Amino acid sequence: MRHDDLADVNCSVARTWAVVGERWTMLVLRELFRGRRRFEVIQDQLGLGRSVLTDRLRTLVEHGVVVREPYQDSPRRHEYRLTPKGEDLYPLLVAMIRWGDRWSTDGDPPVVLEHRGCGHEVDLRLACPACDRDLGRRDVTAVFAPDAW
Amino acid sequence: MRHDDLADVNCSVARTWAVVGERWTMLVLRELFRGRRRFEVIQDQLGLGRSVLTDRLRTLVEHGVVVREPYQDSPRRHEYRLTPKGEDLYPLLVAMIRWGDRWSTDGDPPVVLEHRGCGHEVDLRLACPACDRDLGRRDVTAVFAPDAW
Repeated sequence: MRHDDLADVNCSVARTWAVVGERWTMLVLRELFRGRRRFEVIQDQLGLGRSVLTDRLRTLVEHGVVVREPYQDSPRRHEYRLTPKGEDLYPLLVAMIRWGDRWSTDGDPPVVLEHRGCGHEVDLRLACPACDRDLGRRDVTAVFAPDAW
Repeated sequence: MRHDDLADVNCSVARTWAVVGERWTMLVLRELFRGRRRFEVIQDQLGLGRSVLTDRLRTLVEHGVVVREPYQDSPRRHEYRLTPKGEDLYPLLVAMIRWGDRWSTDGDPPVVLEHRGCGHEVDLRLACPACDRDLGRRDVTAVFAPDAW
């Protein structure tokens, strides 16, 4: 199977990975979540090649995660913004930050996510809404559909 | 910058991506979370090349996410298991499943994650522990350390 075929299998992990699972993609999304919308600004921050960034942004636009919009005429310039579908990747970004904080950081974490207003650090919780309890991986069982990949 | 250098910058997204951000890696982890531990079984399911799977597993072992252990002598055979560091990637996998469910699934989701025991579907929530409230992305502000990348 080719990596590009992941979009077509009946697995939500695979279909998500078909959108974000190329080198650099989550870093490009990090920049967009940070409010950096212009090609050159993102490229400068990440220090990656022009053709790679062009390709990643094109994929994100094709999947409806990002829109490319003009912000200036003569010369015409475009910027990139997250759509609601793109904004909805925020929990995935937070999960990455949290894992990196726990397992790869030497001292203080490079970024703290605070609840705007109250100032407390936010949390990403796996929980049961019925029992109102936080869960670990062992508390969860995966029930596959008959046609799941 | 090279993709491999992401492990060394002061950003938890980048450091996480240095571990999981290659083509196929999250799919390999999906298989391991599903309890598939043997090279051939994982390769058969994903339909990817032997050298690619070898490379991805080697990276995961190097980062302490997976251990490679013998399960048989003569001939010697190995299997792969998630370490606690690897198990802790579960929220990231769940975030991917949820996003795929919401944005890429036509009908019923291919897998439902249930609270073992009570049977209700589990949830991944961004929340403020102080206010005991679920939060959206706009409720969160990112405070960067002075030396953050």
